[in-house]
Amino acid sequence: MAVAMGAEELAAFLDEVFPQVRGDFVIEHVEECAVRVRMPVAERHLRPGGTVSGPAMFALADVSVYIAVMAMVGREALAVTTGGSFDFMRKPMAGADLICECRLLKLGRVLAVGECLIFSDGGAEPVARASMTYSIPPKR
Amino acid sequence: MAVAMGAEELAAFLDEVFPQVRGDFVIEHVEECAVRVRMPVAERHLRPGGTVSGPAMFALADVSVYIAVMAMVGREALAVTTGGSFDFMRKPMAGADLICECRLLKLGRVLAVGECLIFSDGGAEPVARASMTYSIPPKR
Amino acid sequence: MAVAMGAEELAAFLDEVFPQVRGDFVIEHVEECAVRVRMPVAERHLRPGGTVSGPAMFALADVSVYIAVMAMVGREALAVTTGGSFDFMRKPMAGADLICECRLLKLGRVLAVGECLIFSDGGAEPVARASMTYSIPPKR
Amino acid sequence: MAVAMGAEELAAFLDEVFPQVRGDFVIEHVEECAVRVRMPVAERHLRPGGTVSGPAMFALADVSVYIAVMAMVGREALAVTTGGSFDFMRKPMAGADLICECRLLKLGRVLAVGECLIFSDGGAEPVARASMTYSIPPKR
Repeated sequence: MAVAMGAEELAAFLDEVFPQVRGDFVIEHVEECAVRVRMPVAERHLRPGGTVSGPAMFALADVSVYIAVMAMVGREALAVTTGGSFDFMRKPMAGADLICECRLLKLGRVLAVGECLIFSDGGAEPVARASMTYSIPPKR
Repeated sequence: MAVAMGAEELAAFLDEVFPQVRGDFVIEHVEECAVRVRMPVAERHLRPGGTVSGPAMFALADVSVYIAVMAMVGREALAVTTGGSFDFMRKPMAGADLICECRLLKLGRVLAVGECLIFSDGGAEPVARASMTYSIPPKR
Repeated sequence: MAVAMGAEELAAFLDEVFPQVRGDFVIEHVEECAVRVRMPVAERHLRPGGTVSGPAMFALADVSVYIAVMAMVGREALAVTTGGSFDFMRKPMAGADLICECRLLKLGRVLAVGECLIFSDGGAEPVARASMTYSIPPKR
Repeated sequence: MAVAMGAEELAAFLDEVFPQVRGDFVIEHVEECAVRVRMPVAERHLRPGGTVSGPAMFALADVSVYIAVMAMVGREALAVTTGGSFDFMRKPMAGADLICECRLLKLGRVLAVGECLIFSDGGAEPVARASMTYSIPPKR
């Protein structure tokens, strides 16, 4: 199955449909059913003890699965997360960006399931994992 | 088991340790092992189609469980989310705040488990559910 | 929304479509979008230390959500679990049956979401929680 | 980190501490923080439509993470599942065994997190994914 949008086109699409997160995420790599997304860590993502907040990591996983789905099915802004789960396993390294490696395990007609491993940039072991289900609206 | 902090004290504590989310959440009710938290919905929480973003709802559930734990164990800023899951079940009503009803199902010495139902203010049926596990650091 | 099948009819239906679990579960109560199901605990459910096995508690939650869905939509054997999550929070009491209190949070045309609290019979605090999503096939 | 027990020793240990599941699972491969486990599919695992039951797939994932933890930490029968999540993504092939590829993402002093992909034997795409957290009791 061919990729429908590459990294540049995906970035432009994201800017257009999610202007609220403009600049929060960098699409580093796109291939069939897999993407790598970087989140430059900013002050607002931090929590007591220097940890990146759970919601920030959740947002990274969520947008990564969205991007992976868009990469395959094309412009379909209305795909929505229906559920998911996550484990926060290690404290992210202070001052390092987060890198999300995302893979689609299923890309069905109406549902997609993606899994994500999140790393501190340069770290060998994942700081978090997440799985997310997206509902894909029928083509009009 | 008695409540260790009431709504006002919790709000002041949250402002102190999470200045990043100041003003994002309103603690409406606190009782033994249960809290109700309101999230005034702002433009930055929205997604295409007028839906409140998954990360915004995740953040509401996450902070609600944190507040419920703090209400019982007292000032312990370093409690961290270790994992959880969520289902986004209905589209939130446009323009309505979100209300999170959170209950601790377990409050152990080292782990707490909370469950949340999130409603659009005035809505009868939950728009989302979440469960979260927090790790509570040992008292020094 | 009216209940489509009561406890007795549900029990007969379960025996017919899931003969593999005959006798494993007792439907104690059925109401709109909620059921209570008992699992008489047997030797094969136990694990080292006298704990009821995770898979046995999973099976109880899974069948309870299935029964809750059938109670509302009527005979629809092909509903399938698409995903879920669980927390095992306390050690079940030795020798006590397990009781599952299950509630449907969403009953859509194609997806249902149920949540379950599992108790040791006579215990006040839940030993486990689970949430499950079922896919409901379209009526032929 | 060296493997503490190989496949044969793990199989003998499992027979000893979980006699209830004797013969249900075959440990095919063990390496550092990863195992492959086969579940020969039997009549009792099936559900209407020829699908392998959710609880059977859950049991396979659960035992696989347990085996992966035991392989690393040695005989520690009392490790218990504290929580997890799963997605059932495709219908398993009729008559094929299930194969679980399990990897530990975290092996801490007190908690381990494992993720599993389950395949129909010979199938290229996963039928299910699961993540599980185990609590490891302190060494006496």
